[in-house]
Parts: sequence; C-alpha cells; structure tokens
Amino acid sequence: MLDKLHTILYTDCHLSPKSVIVVGVSGGPDSLCLLHILLAAGFQVVPAHYNHKLRPQSAEDARFVERFTARYGLSCKIGSGDVAAFSRQSGCSIEEAGRILRYRFLFEQAALVGAKAVAVGHQADDQVETVLLHILRGSGLTGLNGMAYWQLPNPWSQEIPLVRPLLSVWREEILAYCDQHNLSPVEDASNQDVGFVRNRLRHELIPALETFNPRIRQAVWRMSRSVQADVQVLDELTQAAWSECLAQSGDGAVSLWHDRLLRQPVALQRRLLRRAISELRQVSRSLSTGTQDVDFEMIELGLSAMRQVPKTRQIDLGLGLRLIFEPNLVWVAAWESHLPKGDWPSVSPGSAALPLSVPGCLPLGDGWQLTTLQVSAADSWPQFQVHMDPYQAWLDISNFSGALVVRSRLPGDRFHPLGLEGHSLKLSDFMINMKLPARARSHWPLVCAGEQIVWVPGYAVSHLARLQPGSHVVVQLKLERTAQPSS
Amino acid sequence: MLDKLHTILYTDCHLSPKSVIVVGVSGGPDSLCLLHILLAAGFQVVPAHYNHKLRPQSAEDARFVERFTARYGLSCKIGSGDVAAFSRQSGCSIEEAGRILRYRFLFEQAALVGAKAVAVGHQADDQVETVLLHILRGSGLTGLNGMAYWQLPNPWSQEIPLVRPLLSVWREEILAYCDQHNLSPVEDASNQDVGFVRNRLRHELIPALETFNPRIRQAVWRMSRSVQADVQVLDELTQAAWSECLAQSGDGAVSLWHDRLLRQPVALQRRLLRRAISELRQVSRSLSTGTQDVDFEMIELGLSAMRQVPKTRQIDLGLGLRLIFEPNLVWVAAWESHLPKGDWPSVSPGSAALPLSVPGCLPLGDGWQLTTLQVSAADSWPQFQVHMDPYQAWLDISNFSGALVVRSRLPGDRFHPLGLEGHSLKLSDFMINMKLPARARSHWPLVCAGEQIVWVPGYAVSHLARLQPGSHVVVQLKLERTAQPSS
Repeated sequence: MLDKLHTILYTDCHLSPKSVIVVGVSGGPDSLCLLHILLAAGFQVVPAHYNHKLRPQSAEDARFVERFTARYGLSCKIGSGDVAAFSRQSGCSIEEAGRILRYRFLFEQAALVGAKAVAVGHQADDQVETVLLHILRGSGLTGLNGMAYWQLPNPWSQEIPLVRPLLSVWREEILAYCDQHNLSPVEDASNQDVGFVRNRLRHELIPALETFNPRIRQAVWRMSRSVQADVQVLDELTQAAWSECLAQSGDGAVSLWHDRLLRQPVALQRRLLRRAISELRQVSRSLSTGTQDVDFEMIELGLSAMRQVPKTRQIDLGLGLRLIFEPNLVWVAAWESHLPKGDWPSVSPGSAALPLSVPGCLPLGDGWQLTTLQVSAADSWPQFQVHMDPYQAWLDISNFSGALVVRSRLPGDRFHPLGLEGHSLKLSDFMINMKLPARARSHWPLVCAGEQIVWVPGYAVSHLARLQPGSHVVVQLKLERTAQPSS
Repeated sequence: MLDKLHTILYTDCHLSPKSVIVVGVSGGPDSLCLLHILLAAGFQVVPAHYNHKLRPQSAEDARFVERFTARYGLSCKIGSGDVAAFSRQSGCSIEEAGRILRYRFLFEQAALVGAKAVAVGHQADDQVETVLLHILRGSGLTGLNGMAYWQLPNPWSQEIPLVRPLLSVWREEILAYCDQHNLSPVEDASNQDVGFVRNRLRHELIPALETFNPRIRQAVWRMSRSVQADVQVLDELTQAAWSECLAQSGDGAVSLWHDRLLRQPVALQRRLLRRAISELRQVSRSLSTGTQDVDFEMIELGLSAMRQVPKTRQIDLGLGLRLIFEPNLVWVAAWESHLPKGDWPSVSPGSAALPLSVPGCLPLGDGWQLTTLQVSAADSWPQFQVHMDPYQAWLDISNFSGALVVRSRLPGDRFHPLGLEGHSLKLSDFMINMKLPARARSHWPLVCAGEQIVWVPGYAVSHLARLQPGSHVVVQLKLERTAQPSS
C-alpha cells in the first residue's frame, strides 16, 4: 500500500517532496491515515478541522483532532460556521452546505499558509459510492469518472489543487493502517457529511450488488479509472471543437457557428451545447431536484432543433434559456438577454433618410460605409453577372424619378427582388424568407430611389433596377466595413 | 411510439423502405410486437423461429409462432438444434449456446432469402439490464453503451446488419401494444435465453434501484445512449491511432511502434493494447469466468511495462501472451509463436564464413547486399566522421592479417567497439547493450578480418579498425537492401 501511495503522491497528485499541504482532518480513520502517511512521507502538513456544530459531540471531535495533531507537534487550524443558516440561505441541503463551508475554510487556510495543495481523505469506497450515485441519478460519462486524484481548477480555487491521495485505498486497508499505527480515530466522524442516500447506498445497495459480484467495488472502481482517461480525451476534443465553433460570447448569450457544429460527431455536439448552457446557467446536478432529466432532455431537444431548424427559428430550451437560429449561427440565450448586435451594417430606425450622392461615400457607423460610383453599363455587365459579394450592387435607376437615399424600413414597404417571378412582396416577408436575423431587420439599411427600395444590401437588388440590355448609366454601390466598431 | 419508431427504423436502423428483413420470433410480446410493426411499416418480413428444445412446451411455442405468422400470410422458417450438446462441446452456458445457435440460424436464413437485415426484439428494459450486467461485471466504457440499433459487422455476419428497432420502447409499452392489437403472445417465451443472473437483476436489483430513483431505468438507458456516441468518437480515434502505431502483424504476434504508442493519450494506449490482444485472443467477457479482472489488470500491467521497460525486456501478460520489447518496437505475442523475422540483414547461423572481396558485392538474401570499395583515406575522413548511416563503414584493416569475411557469431566472440574506453567485451554483452533484438542476434552478419570482428553493421566499427591519422588504404563497406524480400 505504501509503495503504491508513493507513486500516487508524486505522479497522480503532482505533489513536490516536502511541500506544504493543508490536510482536512475530520478525526475519522480516512483523514488520520492520510495525515499520518503525508507526515511519514516528509511533507509539511498543516492540519485543518472544520467544526460543523451539527452534532452534540462536534466540539469534542474538534478537541480530539487538536490533541491528535499535537502529538506530531502540529497546531491544527480550527474553523466553524453556521451550516444550518447557510443551508437555509442557499437552499442547498445540510450536507451540501457543510461541504461548501468546509472546503471554503480549507482553501482559505491553504491560501493563508501558502500551501501547494489541499489534501482530503476520500478513499476507494467513497469513489465507488460516488460513481454509483451518479449512475443512480442518470449521469452521462462525466459522472462515471468519479473523483480525481488531482483537481485543478476546482470549485474553490484556480491555483491550489485539491488532491485525494487515498482514492485507491479501500476502507479495510485504512482501518488496518490505523490499527497498526494506533491512530484510534473518532467513530463515524468521516460520515458527518454523508447524506441519507449515500448511507443507504453503503449499507443496502452495495451489499446487494455484492451478491451479484463479490468484487463489485473493485469493478466499479476500475470502471471509473478507465472512464477517467476516456473523459480526458473527450474533454480535449471538446475544447478544440469549442474554439472552432464559438462565434460570439456575450452578456447572457453564446453563439456557435451552425455548420461547424453540425460537422462535429454527436458526442461533441452534445458537449458543446452543454458547455454553452453551462456558460449561462449553473446547471445543478442534485439528485433531489432531478435536474439531470431536464439536462438530458434539454440537450436532445437542442440537438434535434439544430439538425432540423424549426420554422419559428427559436425554441424554449428550459432553465430560462432559448435557442435562436440566425443565418449560420445558433444562439443559446437567456430569455431576458438582448442578443449582442451582429457583425452587420445598420441605420437608426425611424430617423430621416440619408441622401446618397453619386459618386459619394456615406458612413453608416460601426466602421461601415457605402460608396457609390457612376460606371458605364458595358463595364458593369460582367461584374454584375458574376460577382459574389452580396454587399456590392450595380443598378440601373434611370427609370426612377426620386433621388437615391438610405433608410431603415417603413410600414408598408414592399420589394420585388430580382429573380422572383411575378410581383413584389412585403419587405417583412422577404426578410423572413431570406433569414435576415430578426433583431437586425428594423436597423437594416435599405437603398431607395425615391420611395422605392432598389437594393437590400446583402440580399438582393430590385427587379426594377436590374441591368438590362438597354441600360446606359449604371450606379455601382459597395457597402463595406473599413474600420472596426468603436465599442 | 409509432412516430418515434419511424425515425428509428429508417435513421437509426438504416432500413430501406419495403426491404426484406428476417425477424427472430420467439412468440413472446417483444418479437410479436416487432413483427407487427415491421409489417405495418411495409417491410417484406420473413419470420424465423428457433426451437431450443429445452422446455416441454417448446414444440408448442414453435407451432404457435407458425399459426401466428400464418395469420399474416407468412410462412415461418423453423430451425432447431441440440443446444445442450453444443453447450457441452463449446464449454459455454446453456443460455449462451442457445443464443449462438439461434443467431446462426437467423443469419443463415437471412443469407438464403437475401435479406437486408436480421431484426430482433430487444427493448429498452433489455438494454438497461445489459448495461447493468456490464457494470456488475466491471466493464469499461465499451460495455456501458449496451446494444446498438444497428450492428455491422456483428459476430454472425460481415454483410448483413443485426438491427434492434425496439431498443427505446419499454416493456410496458410493448405489452400495451400487444393488448391493443390482440397479439396474445406466449408467456415468458422471450425469457428463454434469460439466465439466472439476468432474472435476479430484473426481479431483485432493478426494483431495489428504483427505491433510490424511481426513474432509474430511464437514467441507465440515457446513460447508455450518451455513452454510445462517446464510444463512437473514441473508436474512430483508436482506429486512426492503430493505423499510426501498427508496425507488423504476423502469425500469433503483433508489433507496435513504441514511441508512437507512448505519444497517444492513456485512453487510446489502453484501447490499442486491448486491440492487439484481441487480434491474438478471443477475450471472453463472461461474468462467470471473471476474465474482466484479468483483462483490466493485463492492460494496466502492459501499459506500465511500456512506460518503464523492464530489464528482462519481456513480460508475461497472461492468457498465454507476452510483451516483448525490441528497439522501438513492442510485440504482443503468443508464447508459442515465433516472432516474424524483422526488417534486417541476416546470415545463416553456423554456416561457413562468406569471403568478401574488395571491390565486390556479396548478396545476403532477403534483398540485402554488402558492397565493398577501396578508397583513399583522404576521401574517407569527412564521411567517416559525419556519416549517419549505421549500415556504412570505413575501415583501416591494414594491421589485420586475415582476409575479409562475413559470418554469424561464434562462441567466445569478443568485440571492441570504437568509442568504448579500455578493452573488448563479449559480443553477446555488446549485443544486449545495444538492444539488438534477441531473435536477430544469432543471424546477425558480422564483418571480420580473419578471426577478428571489425564491424557489426548497424551498430559499431571495431576500435582496432578505426581510421587514424596515419591510415592510407581504406575499405568502404555499405550494407543495403536493394530489393524486397521474396517471401
């Protein structure tokens, strides 16, 4: 056991010899064994005990830990807090509240003494119970890998790792170790954060499972170990895919490139959507609230909408989130959030039309500008026919009486896009058909000759302003972004 | 349910409309429901029933299935065999023997009628039980994903897929469907292949798990679905890594490039070693024999040897396999196998020394040849000092009396490699130090001047034959492969 632990301390827990380590000591067998082993291995151990004050004997436990650590010439840091009050305030269970306050205290102590790690006494049986709890509540792969030897970042620190050197040591081995070294731990102290479900798991379910396979604990432990390495590979792939697919991350909204997302394998699509959601919401994984159900169904709902975009171009994901589809973008957004302004040109809705001289250059804000030139029809034809830039247009406006202006849409606007048989349609319908982002429509710049829309930049020129064999004078328009927005 | 099934039939099971499908029909609710649904969906169904002859009522069951399928104008294929005898011969359990013979029969029928798939009635509860069984026996990730909607290749065919359209339908839904359509299935017929462990799981463990989470079956089912996509990603990575790492695959032995293997993430290292083992051994996954233990420990043992190569350069992996380390190669080999000859030059051990004329060219077999030239010392110096090809040498043999020959090693051979301080060492020690593959040593060509070894091609020239400031006449030797081996 000690040989195995040596490798684990230096390789799996990444500890440096003789470094300072804060050790959480409840007084139970696991933590006393851990403390004893770390001292024997030459680390500079700072014991820390958190008094949950939930049981009559908790003050006695704290004094026991002080006396115990004093035997090794160590002064134990003692912390305490009002767990019940924290539980009421935060809405989490008493066990969860105790756990949060205890870890906060341990990491505060670690920061104070400049420790290189916080070590806790979780052992192999705890690992098995954790994995089984995750299976019971319907975890995906990430729950199956259980706890890690070394965890950084962790919920309490970005710099100080949480280490669990005893994760491969069974309870029986720890009890034997305590016996052999006369550590006489407090009874059950290590169980003070064990909830009702975990206790039933330990005392009912695992014995029942052992009637199927006497080595079930080893089997589950091995599974978690094997899955840990798998999860690491998938996490790295997810990170790379996230960088590839992330378009924009704003206040209460995240957007992903739709085509890139669909090119990923399903396993990564799920992880990317889950990650986008978790950037916006702290997804609770509590068994009691059953949010795992929500979680799984939410992801499946989202993925199926991504594969077959609904006509509404928006779905309710639950958890106060919606999925919004824009041209090649998928937004995951809080209902209350305003999506960030897209990377597109805009004019203020309702303001006066802006006169457009030819030749001329009209700045539109955010670094966009619209330039115009008068060119001959002969020069324009080839470009008109083959150009690929939707922000350029060649128009024959000789049949229009009004001057060229730029404005936002007005009630009753109609438009007859080039290529559409028949007559004009409502501009709002055209914008919907073209999947012009809903929140961009009211700001979209429209080039008009008098009252009539002759160009919707990015989408289509008007049938009435198209170049024809008889065209002579042509206006060339180019909308482009020449500078980054000032914001 | 039927809407959901429509997508599953065409998308998940990859079935083409109206195609011919052999359906395994036990007479139980699952298979009757499946048959009924496939008929309603317009497939050309060929029912097939295997009579296991293990229970008194099995002949009656077969007649029931014939009558049932006749109602739809279908003629049922009936097969049977001596399951008990097959079980005795093959050493597998009665249930396993029945399963093997049944699937063989179904796929034989599918080949006979040119079916596009074999469909069986596994449903969501079966899936949950399968996953839990895998957890109980200590599966890695691959066991957690359970059964697939579509499986090809499968143990019975490389061309005809095995499909399980009902995998997302719960037993209750199937019973309700049977009720609604008056299918009146045979009682328990679908349980005829259900062993003792699975029955206990169904009737004891799952109800116990439901006291923890009433939706445990849904939770496990979702986990398997989520893990399936993860496994697919990992399988693809493994396939790519296998192509990258595989060096040679011979009779009873597989070799991998050691450096490339170590560059893979641990999750893939495990899978590559497992794949190498499974190329050599059918690794049984039976619960009763507990080979999963062997499997996991075997893989961990192998990986740890790969990371820190043992002095013996060989370890026993178990299952009659060993791991052998050669320069940059890791062999997984059956104990009884002869490793394939490596990609190196050789001479027959014990045969007469081959005279080497200068200039000259001596063929060594397998496409290798040794060419010699007489060159001036002045021309040789720069090349002698900087050349990188271990199969070229420049020797000053003017101090040796004997003629140049090529031979294999002899008892008592000693060698003084250039660069080694002091005196000569045993050739066998030199070969071990240089990690010359053990099985290549007796065949390795040695260039000698008279009795003395002056060059061990690929490794070192003799200190005594080194070029010196006073050297005049130099022999240049080049060993090269000019043709592929004839074998």
